[in-house]
Amino acid sequence: MKFDLSHKDSKSSARAGSITTDHGVIQTPIFMPVGTAGSVKAVHQRELKDDIKAQIILGNTYHLYLRPGLDIIGEAGGLHKFNGWDGPILTDSGGYQVYSLSGTRKIKEDGVTFMSHIDGSRHTFTPENVMDIQRRIGADIIMAFDECTPYPCEYTYARESMEMTHRWLDRCCKRFDETESLYGYQQTLFPIVQGSVYPDLRKQSAEAIAAFGREGNAIGGLSVGEPAEKMYEMTSLVCDILPSDKPRYLMGVGTPANILECIALGIDMFDCVMPTRNARNGMLFTTQGIINIRNEKWKNDLNPIDPELGGYVSTFYSRAYLRHLIHSKEILGAQIASIHNLTFYLWLVGQAREHIIAGDFAIWKEKMTKTVSQRL
Amino acid sequence: MKFDLSHKDSKSSARAGSITTDHGVIQTPIFMPVGTAGSVKAVHQRELKDDIKAQIILGNTYHLYLRPGLDIIGEAGGLHKFNGWDGPILTDSGGYQVYSLSGTRKIKEDGVTFMSHIDGSRHTFTPENVMDIQRRIGADIIMAFDECTPYPCEYTYARESMEMTHRWLDRCCKRFDETESLYGYQQTLFPIVQGSVYPDLRKQSAEAIAAFGREGNAIGGLSVGEPAEKMYEMTSLVCDILPSDKPRYLMGVGTPANILECIALGIDMFDCVMPTRNARNGMLFTTQGIINIRNEKWKNDLNPIDPELGGYVSTFYSRAYLRHLIHSKEILGAQIASIHNLTFYLWLVGQAREHIIAGDFAIWKEKMTKTVSQRL
Repeated sequence: MKFDLSHKDSKSSARAGSITTDHGVIQTPIFMPVGTAGSVKAVHQRELKDDIKAQIILGNTYHLYLRPGLDIIGEAGGLHKFNGWDGPILTDSGGYQVYSLSGTRKIKEDGVTFMSHIDGSRHTFTPENVMDIQRRIGADIIMAFDECTPYPCEYTYARESMEMTHRWLDRCCKRFDETESLYGYQQTLFPIVQGSVYPDLRKQSAEAIAAFGREGNAIGGLSVGEPAEKMYEMTSLVCDILPSDKPRYLMGVGTPANILECIALGIDMFDCVMPTRNARNGMLFTTQGIINIRNEKWKNDLNPIDPELGGYVSTFYSRAYLRHLIHSKEILGAQIASIHNLTFYLWLVGQAREHIIAGDFAIWKEKMTKTVSQRL
Repeated sequence: MKFDLSHKDSKSSARAGSITTDHGVIQTPIFMPVGTAGSVKAVHQRELKDDIKAQIILGNTYHLYLRPGLDIIGEAGGLHKFNGWDGPILTDSGGYQVYSLSGTRKIKEDGVTFMSHIDGSRHTFTPENVMDIQRRIGADIIMAFDECTPYPCEYTYARESMEMTHRWLDRCCKRFDETESLYGYQQTLFPIVQGSVYPDLRKQSAEAIAAFGREGNAIGGLSVGEPAEKMYEMTSLVCDILPSDKPRYLMGVGTPANILECIALGIDMFDCVMPTRNARNGMLFTTQGIINIRNEKWKNDLNPIDPELGGYVSTFYSRAYLRHLIHSKEILGAQIASIHNLTFYLWLVGQAREHIIAGDFAIWKEKMTKTVSQRL
């Protein structure tokens, strides 16, 4: 993996660059659509490429490990071959899902035992086997196994958890460096900064993680319920410590305004289920602001969903039609809204990139944050 | 509307022709995907056109009338403008849904009162207002308001119901002929033959319906649970009576084998929810036979869904991936399976047409019926 930083904004920490993987180049800042179980919900692979213009997608290790399982993914030659997405893929480490989805789980120094949400079967994730699993899934970017603390979180718990995450990282790196890619293309490991919302812990963690000198770094444990200001404060603090010549990935963030703010703080990569999950409930992010398409207001609005955004679904289908589909629980409603929202997210980070390159990011960001945050 | 019969099969009653509407030409025999609430479930409008190669789709009057309602459809300029499908549309009369979906309904000579399945509100359909409603929806082909009898059905009830359907047809024709298209393109009315599975009633009804001399004729009240042999017997009997220079539409039929058999009996038009409904449950109709993709058998099958069929979804996605999506209840599973099944149905009637034109329909049909009926 290669990261080239091409532009730095003079009035903020925003930057534009590119990440080169064996599955293609990613232009940063970038948003990564979430394909939990090997499918970005309600979106065809060709739509990801042609309509949304996704450059990298996510897979969730927890889900893929449980179903369809590693045997079939391995037999296919990795997730790219299994689901047909031939661009870069990043997999999370499964930690987050184990903590949030799995009913009963036990966290010990060695690893985490948990119960499958599908059939109740018992499994164990350790730093070592999570590396092996992600090797087998075949992600281009593999995430370290960490503990994502909840919010709020006691200081002592946050510190001890962070320290264990660092020890786990040691084990992740060791296993990752001892093993090889199974499918002939390069894979890279990103460690994750933790430390809840405590500045001293975040500082400690960022320094520890930076010292590992991996090819990219991530910030976890944010966007878990804390106020946005806390998220920005932690992100800013951590970005100042993480090396500037490596990509920085802020996990699980967020709203369009969150993304713009965190780009300004120096983040290069984002992922979030918000554009797809909210789409299925009828919340649209548009170039003019936020639309709850379920509202009476849109009942007779025969205008296209978002003519400014462009693209098939946003210009072809009307707001009134989409409202009807969402109210009628028609699958096509979820399809249209998901493609629209993801197209918007990719457009937004693409615009940010253009303005960083053009040198007017700060002004643009201020104006755009207001626009995309307003409720229409 | 214009119907041109171009070829007749010498060894069966199969025929090839074309129906010209103001929204385009339909090559018969044809299968019409069902778009109940103005959307063919899980399928984008461009996929209907480019992938499935649909030539005409259905809308359900009952559903569209209740939601989104006539005001917004009228304001849009009709259903074509509302949902963006610019090819021909046929709407059913709402009768079938009123009998099968609506909890409490009262059938009287004047019409039917029923309760909305959405909000319990009370409504009345009469032969007259159902014509007005379909005028307003803007279908190219409008169906007469009939009573679709259940199976089994007492002879006396079937006869009395059929007689009422004929009297209702009188009223439908009167209202239809007194009114005009609202959107500048021509609309046409198809009457419906009833009579349950009683040959004498079917004969009476076919003669009565033929005497109205409309531009096309339909056969209703079949595919409601009767044995396939009864369906074929009734269809054959009715086709022999209905004029050969008008298109014949067999409502709600059916499996690929049913369709091939009824093409041989002289049917030109079909519709059925089977390809889309069964798709959502993982049943695939393929050029090699029927696949239940949920079965263990397909777990490791990395072959494309149906390479012989061609097209994006059937060649791009593997059986193992589709099985995973259906098991995981991923929306994309419903999308892939729906496009595949509809593509197959359109391919099947297209092949039938080619073989009718080539003169070897009977031989082809015999072989193909076996192939498409076998379980893989």
